[in-house]
Order: sequence, then structure tokens, then C-alpha cells
Amino acid sequence: MSTWYCDGNSIDALPIDDRAIHYGDGLFETIAIRAGSPRLWHLHIDRLRYGCERLAIAMPPEENLHTGLQQAINESGIDSGYALAKIIITAGSGRRGYRRPDSGQGRVLTAVYSAQRLAPAGYRKGVATVRCATALAEQPALAGIKTLNRLEQVVARNEWHDPDVHEGLMCDTAGRLICGTMSNVFVVHDQSIITPILDRCGVAGVMRRHVIDTLHADGINANEDDIHWDDAMLVDEVFLTNSQYGVLPVRQCGEQRWAVGPVTRELMKRVAKSGIEECAL
Amino acid sequence: MSTWYCDGNSIDALPIDDRAIHYGDGLFETIAIRAGSPRLWHLHIDRLRYGCERLAIAMPPEENLHTGLQQAINESGIDSGYALAKIIITAGSGRRGYRRPDSGQGRVLTAVYSAQRLAPAGYRKGVATVRCATALAEQPALAGIKTLNRLEQVVARNEWHDPDVHEGLMCDTAGRLICGTMSNVFVVHDQSIITPILDRCGVAGVMRRHVIDTLHADGINANEDDIHWDDAMLVDEVFLTNSQYGVLPVRQCGEQRWAVGPVTRELMKRVAKSGIEECAL
Repeated sequence: MSTWYCDGNSIDALPIDDRAIHYGDGLFETIAIRAGSPRLWHLHIDRLRYGCERLAIAMPPEENLHTGLQQAINESGIDSGYALAKIIITAGSGRRGYRRPDSGQGRVLTAVYSAQRLAPAGYRKGVATVRCATALAEQPALAGIKTLNRLEQVVARNEWHDPDVHEGLMCDTAGRLICGTMSNVFVVHDQSIITPILDRCGVAGVMRRHVIDTLHADGINANEDDIHWDDAMLVDEVFLTNSQYGVLPVRQCGEQRWAVGPVTRELMKRVAKSGIEECAL
Repeated sequence: MSTWYCDGNSIDALPIDDRAIHYGDGLFETIAIRAGSPRLWHLHIDRLRYGCERLAIAMPPEENLHTGLQQAINESGIDSGYALAKIIITAGSGRRGYRRPDSGQGRVLTAVYSAQRLAPAGYRKGVATVRCATALAEQPALAGIKTLNRLEQVVARNEWHDPDVHEGLMCDTAGRLICGTMSNVFVVHDQSIITPILDRCGVAGVMRRHVIDTLHADGINANEDDIHWDDAMLVDEVFLTNSQYGVLPVRQCGEQRWAVGPVTRELMKRVAKSGIEECAL
């Protein structure tokens, strides 16, 4: 178990009246730590700020978040050369009932975990996926942000136990491909790079954002669009993004197979050059 | 703050690796305590068992739940003549990631809170409600059960601050009336008693169940059906159900007003006779 920190102290438990426990009232980020520093920090902060705004939770000062993270890195005893941090912002303690306290104060929890590099074969040959039977509900009020309400992902992730299956792909209840249980998804078709719109459900990942931004800086468009599951099965290439591993080609979903194609390879080179070293294979 | 109990001990915090904190991975019940005993205990147990089955969490033995509740009643120092208990079942501690541990053990948390009777005027004249802008997402995988993922209710409950408004009514994203933020809803039209179907979203409350069963035992049908919001505004009578207060007539929603009608009055008498004393007014 990792050491968690809150307000400068190491903690092993959360006050029982915290609204994260009772309602999942809060947000979180999982952040890649490379060479002792958080990667894509500004994108994580942007998403937290947006999430706090959406949930009407006071955004803690960025400096406090950074100080807490630095403490966890320094004191956890985990090799921070290649690690992972988790920051949770809860709506804080409250009385019973859905209504937030009038003068509630949020709580910031931070921990660093050791992390393992993915096997290089995944980047070179692609990973296997399955389609999850669990669909994502359309909830515009919570779409895009990374809240502590994650039962859909829990149920979906527990659908498969084959260790050779890296990820489960999820559709919304209307049958549109949305994301993986812990990643975003892109498809390539006729040279176009497309990733699902995430304004009805799904989490807008920071690596997804970084990939779109990196391509854009190079004059390449990655378009957000609706992608029906059946159409997704007919594309040329598929890849996943995640803050930890960067970009990972998908070689199959169930019986459907894809090559690790030239667009994905070229894109991985660009992303590696932008600082996501894992993609340089 | 109430005293919480877990495994026979009083606790003031939850282990930081509990999946309730990270994912809302668990269930809860709020139970009316009357004359020292839990009311409608068997219905709460039925819902917990069904919820555990749906989420693939091992249902703790009913005896353990009852022992924990009795401890909270005996030791909390709260007047258990008229009180409220909350039981939380979490998926227990786990490592990082959505996947449940192979040999995970759930955790049962129990507390008793003091409770206040609603003012008699609410039962006699009905309460005021508003329509929440926040809609409930259609998620059959989680519908009907009372999970710890309650952000929709949190966001909806924080839409209004007028203390004269008792409840917010919620629709699904298709505009069908589903429930209140903390209650179920029934409508009466042309002598028919109808309550929304809850297989796409909403929580199937134990008082809703008890009202349906009580009517059924008297040869009266309360039908589950889809109710579009616009149609709900045209009905003769509206009432709410909740494990704490029983049955509560609705006198208005925004500008729309309803009388506390004869069907609701008659039904409240029957429900009072069945042991839900609050309704005897």
C-alpha cells in the first residue's frame, strides 16, 4: 500500500464523514512521474480546474497541489524516476445528505505508486482488447471529467480476466465507441485520425489532449466525431492513449484484427519527440 | 458527527485504500429506527442483497449487519426511539486500478444519526418541489440499486437553496419523470396509482416497495409505467415516498399545483396502519 498525504501529513485513512466515501463527491488524476517530476502537469491541472468548476468544488491553489505531490515524491520512498502519482480532491467532510455544506472545505489526498513499464511488444505489435458489455450512460453533467463515481468502469473492468487482454473498449448506450475502461481511443481511416466526442460520457484524458495538441502543432488534425461501433470495426488502425503509457496500438478486439499501421507509427514518433519517451520504439 | 462502527469497533476514518473512496465501489441503505428497531429491515436487506449481486460484492451475512446495527444503536448514545441508521457496504480495500482484487473482502460500516420528525403540515398540506435541471443518465447496469455513486443526486440537490422547497424532482435524459433526489414519486390520475419504472435509472426505494406491497395486499394496484414530465404535470395527485418519512403529498412543483387528494389521503391511512406511523394525520 502506498503512503498517502493530506495537508502535509501522512495518512492511512480518510475521515469517515468525507463526501468521497458517501457519494463519490470528488475528482482524481493519475499522473506519470518521470525523472522525479510530474509529466503533463499543466494538463492535469487544467482538467482538475475544469472538474472542480463543473462540480462546484473549490479548486485548491495549484501550488498546494504541487507541494503535496512533491512531498509524496520525496517521502514515499518510491523510486520517482519512473512512477505514478494519484491526486484526489474530495468535496470534504459534510453532514448526512446530498446537499453540500455551506462552508465546506475540500480535501486533497496525494500518493505516489511504483509503476512498471509496459513490455515493448505492446508498442511494436499492438495490444489485444475486448468489447465490454457494460455501456456508458449518457450524462452530460458529468461527461469529460474524472470524478470519483467510477462504478461503470469497475463493472466493465471486471468483465474479463484474461491477462493477455490489455483493455476493454466501451460504447455508450446508443452503441457509439467512446473509450477504454482506463484509456481513450483513436481510430485511423483513410488517413483521417478520429477520436470520439466526449460531451455525453467518457473521460477526456490528458494524453488524448496532448496527442491532439501535438498533432495540431504539426499541422495535422485529429477530429472529434461520433464513431459507431460497427464503423470502428472497419477502420484501418486503432490506438489507445493513457497518461502512463502514452500511445499504444491496438492489434485486435475480439476476432477483429488491425495492423499497426503507418499513421499510428508516425504519430508515435511525434508523440515520443514531444516528451512521451515510451512511444519511441 | 455520528459514531461509525466497523467489525465491532468504533471508527472515525476509513482505510485510504478502500474502493469506496476511489471509485464509489459499494452500496448503502438509510434505515428508519423506530422504538429501538430498524423499520422495514427485510426490505433493506433484500435491496442490499440484490445490490451486492448486481455489483458482484459478497453479501455479508444478515446477522452480521444486524449485530453491527444493534451495536451502533446501543453505543452511539443517540435516542433510538426515533432515529436513522446508515449502513454502507464497500468492496473493501484493493490495489490501484478498477479491477477488483481476486480475494477481496468487503467492509460494513454502520452509524446511527438522530432524526427529526417532519412538520405535520407537510403531511396535511403537501410539500413544495422543483424540477431539477440535472437529468438522470440511463444506466441499466446500475439502475434500481443504491450505490455509492451519487454525484447526479449531489449536483441536483445543490440546484436549489430555498428551505421551503422540500425536494427536487428528476427526469431521465429522455424527459421521463423518475424520482426525487432522495425519494420516489407516485402520481394519481383517474384513480390509477402509477410510479415510474426504474430499470434504466433511479433507486428503487424500500418505502416505494412497501407502499406497492401494502396496496397490493388490499387488492389495489400501483402500476409501474413510464411517465413523461408533461403528463405528470396533468395528473390529479402526486406524492413522495422515503424510508424516513413514509408518504408525503406534493402540493406543488414550480408553478404547478396539486390538491392533497382523496386517493393519497386514503393511501396514507393504509400505510399508517401498516406500521408507518408518520402517515397517520
